[in-house]
Amino acid sequence: MKMNVIEHTDRREAPVGVFDSGIGGLTVAREIMRNLPSEKIVYFGDTARLPYGNKSKETIIRFSRQIVRFLMKQDVKAIVIACNTASAFALDTLKKEFDIPIIGVIDAGAEVAASVTKNHRIGVIGTVGTIGSGIHADYLHRLDPRIEVVGKACPLFVPLAEEGWLNDPVTEAVAHRYLDDLKKKDIDTLILGCTHYPLLRSLIGNVMGSHVRLVNPAYETALELRNLLTEQDLLSKTPGEEEFPYRFFVSDLAEEFKKFANSILPYDVEMTQKINLEDEGV
Amino acid sequence: MKMNVIEHTDRREAPVGVFDSGIGGLTVAREIMRNLPSEKIVYFGDTARLPYGNKSKETIIRFSRQIVRFLMKQDVKAIVIACNTASAFALDTLKKEFDIPIIGVIDAGAEVAASVTKNHRIGVIGTVGTIGSGIHADYLHRLDPRIEVVGKACPLFVPLAEEGWLNDPVTEAVAHRYLDDLKKKDIDTLILGCTHYPLLRSLIGNVMGSHVRLVNPAYETALELRNLLTEQDLLSKTPGEEEFPYRFFVSDLAEEFKKFANSILPYDVEMTQKINLEDEGV
Repeated sequence: MKMNVIEHTDRREAPVGVFDSGIGGLTVAREIMRNLPSEKIVYFGDTARLPYGNKSKETIIRFSRQIVRFLMKQDVKAIVIACNTASAFALDTLKKEFDIPIIGVIDAGAEVAASVTKNHRIGVIGTVGTIGSGIHADYLHRLDPRIEVVGKACPLFVPLAEEGWLNDPVTEAVAHRYLDDLKKKDIDTLILGCTHYPLLRSLIGNVMGSHVRLVNPAYETALELRNLLTEQDLLSKTPGEEEFPYRFFVSDLAEEFKKFANSILPYDVEMTQKINLEDEGV
Repeated sequence: MKMNVIEHTDRREAPVGVFDSGIGGLTVAREIMRNLPSEKIVYFGDTARLPYGNKSKETIIRFSRQIVRFLMKQDVKAIVIACNTASAFALDTLKKEFDIPIIGVIDAGAEVAASVTKNHRIGVIGTVGTIGSGIHADYLHRLDPRIEVVGKACPLFVPLAEEGWLNDPVTEAVAHRYLDDLKKKDIDTLILGCTHYPLLRSLIGNVMGSHVRLVNPAYETALELRNLLTEQDLLSKTPGEEEFPYRFFVSDLAEEFKKFANSILPYDVEMTQKINLEDEGV
């Protein structure tokens, strides 16, 4: 299965690049497919090096830089970092280094959280890397200095979601361990700051209680992408021209990725290819 | 902190290379330090790309090949793969490709399990990769065709151990979920087929019951290394000549690694250096 790069002389018809450490970013890709159905997507999941949440800023920037170079070789017109850890650690650096519009999932989530909170007390859950970066508080304070932010790293949520224990007493016990302290902090809004967490949404909602609004940044990221493409006159005008509007690349386990993607995307994922970033010269 | 490679004209005085996906292999390094105190060690932990347990054979072989090349540049005389997944997937390939003695942790564990079982029913727990490979059964059947092997992947044990929940009701509930089926299979011996699992040894022992003998391959691997070095006349004769007999390299998070290493090694770990394998040209 050889996939040639199509050069788009009309930049509006070039695809959007989306990347994540693995499969979690598909929840963001799904929202782009739903809300911007004319857009083509090139997705990259770094399944050979996942997870990103327990690695250093320096390493995540290095990995993200390679992926952006790879996506630019696929002739993308804009890039969405569909991974909270990579958004937290690498977005600023990538925006400075590359001459292409790049957005992350953190600012979109922060914006909706700031707009829905009534008591200005917002919780954030995510990986050790994302929470340790304190980046949600930076964004939220810029939007409204009155906001108080309470962060909590929940490292077991990703492996529990990947084990498929979505509504399970063990996962519930882990959620109580992580979230009971957060509940005492009187927050009225909780940002799901990791792309896997929407899979545990109902369980997290039950533990937190119905008075806490859960924010999943995937939808807002799709809207932010639409705004960006509109502003820069990059919105696609001609839907459905290409045989494969959605193409998927991973650095490992292409078959497993395809299986998972088919279970969550409103679309039959055929074009999945394993590539080795080192061989790509990026 | 620059560490120069010392060329050893007497091969017996060259260090032993030990590698793992991260920190787990330190339990093997510790046994080598205890049982072969004259040997020098160069340890590599691939902390930028861990874990290995949920990645493909092809990818693990590629990673392991790079690490062996790096260790050979450090002038090692022999290599110990202190990671069960890498031993399962890469040992045979590496032995064919490189002209240096290489051993893994799987055969050592299999040998002691085969020698202690009375009813010829042995359980193995490990990562998805290790258990899926079926390699323990291959080794055990070669040692004694009567042995029946029951394998069980326990993907949450590593993140639970890294969270530090070693004696915890959540970990106990997870252990029951994974091990209750195994208990019904009438095994009398259980191989801890992942270097993190000895950290959960007492909890696993309680769940399995005192009639099941737990086998931790780290000690046996050190003994196998001694046999190998003796056979090939590579055993060190002059202890304590070098300023830094133990050197540690990681691909990420050197400070965190050092902290963990200091907590489990009978030795003050000073010489820890972060390197980027891609920059090493391996």
